[in-house]
Amino acid sequence: MSRPPLHDVAHLAYIELLTPEPEKSLWFFTEVLGLTANGGEGNSVYLRTWDDYERHTLKLTAHDTSGIRRTGLRAESAGALGARVRAIEAAGLGIGWKDGDPGIGPTYAFRDPDGHEIDLYWETEWYSPPTGDLRPALKNQAQAYPGRGVSVRRLDHVNYLARDVRPCGEFVADVLGGRVTEQIVLDDGTLSAQWLHFAQKSYDLVYTQDWTGSAGRLHHVAFSTDTREDILRAADICLDRGVFIETGPHKHAIQQTFFLYVYEPGGNRIELCNPVGRLVMAPDWRTITWTETERAKGQAWGLKTIESFHTHGTPPV
Amino acid sequence: MSRPPLHDVAHLAYIELLTPEPEKSLWFFTEVLGLTANGGEGNSVYLRTWDDYERHTLKLTAHDTSGIRRTGLRAESAGALGARVRAIEAAGLGIGWKDGDPGIGPTYAFRDPDGHEIDLYWETEWYSPPTGDLRPALKNQAQAYPGRGVSVRRLDHVNYLARDVRPCGEFVADVLGGRVTEQIVLDDGTLSAQWLHFAQKSYDLVYTQDWTGSAGRLHHVAFSTDTREDILRAADICLDRGVFIETGPHKHAIQQTFFLYVYEPGGNRIELCNPVGRLVMAPDWRTITWTETERAKGQAWGLKTIESFHTHGTPPV
Amino acid sequence: MSRPPLHDVAHLAYIELLTPEPEKSLWFFTEVLGLTANGGEGNSVYLRTWDDYERHTLKLTAHDTSGIRRTGLRAESAGALGARVRAIEAAGLGIGWKDGDPGIGPTYAFRDPDGHEIDLYWETEWYSPPTGDLRPALKNQAQAYPGRGVSVRRLDHVNYLARDVRPCGEFVADVLGGRVTEQIVLDDGTLSAQWLHFAQKSYDLVYTQDWTGSAGRLHHVAFSTDTREDILRAADICLDRGVFIETGPHKHAIQQTFFLYVYEPGGNRIELCNPVGRLVMAPDWRTITWTETERAKGQAWGLKTIESFHTHGTPPV
Amino acid sequence: MSRPPLHDVAHLAYIELLTPEPEKSLWFFTEVLGLTANGGEGNSVYLRTWDDYERHTLKLTAHDTSGIRRTGLRAESAGALGARVRAIEAAGLGIGWKDGDPGIGPTYAFRDPDGHEIDLYWETEWYSPPTGDLRPALKNQAQAYPGRGVSVRRLDHVNYLARDVRPCGEFVADVLGGRVTEQIVLDDGTLSAQWLHFAQKSYDLVYTQDWTGSAGRLHHVAFSTDTREDILRAADICLDRGVFIETGPHKHAIQQTFFLYVYEPGGNRIELCNPVGRLVMAPDWRTITWTETERAKGQAWGLKTIESFHTHGTPPV
Repeated sequence: MSRPPLHDVAHLAYIELLTPEPEKSLWFFTEVLGLTANGGEGNSVYLRTWDDYERHTLKLTAHDTSGIRRTGLRAESAGALGARVRAIEAAGLGIGWKDGDPGIGPTYAFRDPDGHEIDLYWETEWYSPPTGDLRPALKNQAQAYPGRGVSVRRLDHVNYLARDVRPCGEFVADVLGGRVTEQIVLDDGTLSAQWLHFAQKSYDLVYTQDWTGSAGRLHHVAFSTDTREDILRAADICLDRGVFIETGPHKHAIQQTFFLYVYEPGGNRIELCNPVGRLVMAPDWRTITWTETERAKGQAWGLKTIESFHTHGTPPV
Repeated sequence: MSRPPLHDVAHLAYIELLTPEPEKSLWFFTEVLGLTANGGEGNSVYLRTWDDYERHTLKLTAHDTSGIRRTGLRAESAGALGARVRAIEAAGLGIGWKDGDPGIGPTYAFRDPDGHEIDLYWETEWYSPPTGDLRPALKNQAQAYPGRGVSVRRLDHVNYLARDVRPCGEFVADVLGGRVTEQIVLDDGTLSAQWLHFAQKSYDLVYTQDWTGSAGRLHHVAFSTDTREDILRAADICLDRGVFIETGPHKHAIQQTFFLYVYEPGGNRIELCNPVGRLVMAPDWRTITWTETERAKGQAWGLKTIESFHTHGTPPV
Repeated sequence: MSRPPLHDVAHLAYIELLTPEPEKSLWFFTEVLGLTANGGEGNSVYLRTWDDYERHTLKLTAHDTSGIRRTGLRAESAGALGARVRAIEAAGLGIGWKDGDPGIGPTYAFRDPDGHEIDLYWETEWYSPPTGDLRPALKNQAQAYPGRGVSVRRLDHVNYLARDVRPCGEFVADVLGGRVTEQIVLDDGTLSAQWLHFAQKSYDLVYTQDWTGSAGRLHHVAFSTDTREDILRAADICLDRGVFIETGPHKHAIQQTFFLYVYEPGGNRIELCNPVGRLVMAPDWRTITWTETERAKGQAWGLKTIESFHTHGTPPV
Repeated sequence: MSRPPLHDVAHLAYIELLTPEPEKSLWFFTEVLGLTANGGEGNSVYLRTWDDYERHTLKLTAHDTSGIRRTGLRAESAGALGARVRAIEAAGLGIGWKDGDPGIGPTYAFRDPDGHEIDLYWETEWYSPPTGDLRPALKNQAQAYPGRGVSVRRLDHVNYLARDVRPCGEFVADVLGGRVTEQIVLDDGTLSAQWLHFAQKSYDLVYTQDWTGSAGRLHHVAFSTDTREDILRAADICLDRGVFIETGPHKHAIQQTFFLYVYEPGGNRIELCNPVGRLVMAPDWRTITWTETERAKGQAWGLKTIESFHTHGTPPV
């Protein structure tokens, strides 16, 4: 099978996150991260980052466990959507068409080989510049900068836990058209993690081997800020507000992302990240493979990878 | 007369600012700058920056005009207070002792030669680490970082307009113990501005010639942030919230301060500033004198000094 | 004619810049901007930014005037190269195939409607991780961070002057596959500037109306840094080293880029820029059109557009 | 004995550092940290940070071991020098008067109770604005910003190892006039570290208990940068150039300093630090005491204190 074009998936668009502590999680996303609530239904609240051109970035749903229920990807065009749906069906991983969440048009639901549910769609409602406090001063910006807590700009990536990384990465590459920018291969040949992207951002989806052998779990979701200073300040804000800081701020060796990991009150790991200018310009980028020895060196400037990074996922098992 | 010791005045402590738009000004100081309200009385609200170890930083008072009513300076010690009061009385500029504002002990009120009222005091109530959202995580910090708007750290300096700069600067130097770090001398010999400091901060009080010949007016008060990034972000916040930006962000040639000038809704000019590491270490710092020609070059990186900088003061005349 | 796919051109790759002051310009690009020399031939020196995966970013050529001689664009694939060459030939703007500069494979040369020469190619030599001081510590980085002067990361965009913007923008859109993210339309309907992009970067090529009516000239080339702090520091470095600062640092209203404009010693305007997190995620981004009235407000935070911005281009006429 | 005035010592001025790797150490201080060489004699090279108003900041001396030989403190005035010398002599720790190093006037040498040699002086030669590349564009700056490596602004503090912290801290407080801003007291009552300052900087000299029971050793010397971004970039520069990074960047709980610890090639631990706006304004600052339990929490955002922090000092024993 020839590899599909790189750009049929335009970008990561939204996630639905589950929380057993809906009020506290809502406080975290609005007051600590600075997202804006934009409606709700049933047990869910829709939230958006200030730079999102679509209606929502995060659907936060009260549930008896933590975890990720669904990831939304926007297609590059109507034609690209059709082509990817055919490929997904051919791969036998389709669920089927459904109405999208508010603001989202016809949506094709499917699962990756590890069982994570993904929505793919083309039609979307552009966010209407609001009046009042949310109205931006500049017409090329979706919404006023909130100036509340961390004030994250956008959803950056999702890092899934998977029983087996290889088929997941192959699915994203061969069926969705992603490309592997970096990966970890252990000494015994195990592919323990892969970072994949759809455009100039150097990664959008990540698969990490689940040490528990479970399926469908989440390692973390990441929101990006405009600057590293925002990440440093985020650490102060989390410290003062009692948000658990797992590790960071520091610079990843892989992808060179500047990062901070915290747990939102529902238990999901949230990364606050900044790419510090990194883009993948080469259309034929050569996958960087990190060995076990190289990974043992820790992060870029020497911080050792924290133990809980290998033991905490959501939902807990 | 021999010059008094440099450190008898420890630091600039508070200001009382007048506003004809008290509700909007309160919104500006709390929501845009991120100060915390800490009580009130009559037509005044007390506000504090998060790093202030004392009870309040700003007394915001409803009034029929804008302007500065009073500036508070804390003495280095009880002895220093006594010595300075004697010198002020000898200079004939004393008003007399009074009870201080809430949290402030016995206070000696006086006027500078241009008529600006100043309070000098020693006893003060240390801010008690609050419970709840205001409680800081680190015990060496007065209050939690607000993460709301610009979140300024401290009151940095006051820049007074004066009919005649020279006697004001001499008063601060000879009677209060300040030192002139920088000044502007015009081609005709006029001393048009002086920057004075009491410790390692490179300036605390500034006198600028009032082009209208009025007395007792204010050019601006300044609040400092932790970083230049905070200043850049402040510009975004002011833009989105409709706060008038007069000029900046840019770097001053004089003192090299990174700055942004805005008008609070009551009309007073507010500077948001960052010294970018600058301290005056030398106890015998040699006053830097800028000429008219040098000033004509504009700010450090070339920004021309804006016309309103020479026409807007408060109260208006 | 149906619009070609967005991604056939992968990215802006290199420029050839002309200078009547070759030694001083070389000093500027190596010592002030922090590029690394990587060979030369005849009157040209090849230079590279530290993050460039290809052999060179800038060909600096001694000449009797300033200006831009050539711009290099890399195609997305061999097939994309073929398709674009056919479209260029169909548009009657082709020059023909040639050997590329060192490290660059077969190259198709053509002209935009205003006469600027452009190279399009697919094959390229990846930069070999060097030994010695240039060797990076992290294997996902092309070259060690120089830590010399501004240390720019990459070539960001080229802003061409053109007698008539419209046909140039249409050519980039209809023949090369770019998309217009923002533009200025004057009250009389004149399209005075267009910003076009090929991927998630919000612009790669810009056309600005040439007030002199000349053809083939350059407004500026831009190099991007990792942070806004780098831009602020760049202003200090340029100030101390006598590099002419034209305007900034400030934030553009259009594209929201943080910018600083300087002239390199050969007279070409160089922008140092940072996108501060901005990416165009939407594959169907809706062109932002700025009116004459909106432009009259100046830059984002109020800086007035400097007069020389409308009078200085290279080569001079 | 009544406590002497806070300000008789104006500031930390210089250090003499010993290195068994003089060429590599010189490379580190000039190329990595960005200091400027300013003469030499015998086995020593004098170096200066760009913001130092005096002749030199660092005397780097080839020696058979690493370590600190001498620390220079500048007095507030001639009178303050005399008063402190009398107090030192009364404390029985004086060595005597000597000619100062180049640029430094009559110098009184003494030892702290742990045996570290300290110079106290008043007269100093102000650094003459140089011509050529070192000439600053702004007349209120000592020297052009180097734009080479980390480009540190000033010597920030010295952290001495001492067999017994208490008498050292008492000596600095009671004889030199310093004040303890923060300290660590272990559960058994041991005073394990004290941070002392002489002015608004929150610390200038630090004593840390030497786990080996040796005397006169060095924990680290620190240079400060203008921004936290400079510290983050410093980590990249050290990584690429093979300079050993011990820990950081992170934020200290104590003093809240943003830090990075590296070893210069001679083995001495060097801290790169930024106070992020912190100043001690209160003349009666209340010493913050940290308990063993509090220290066990690690640094501000949770980084655990690295083991070598308790095992590496210079010279090695």
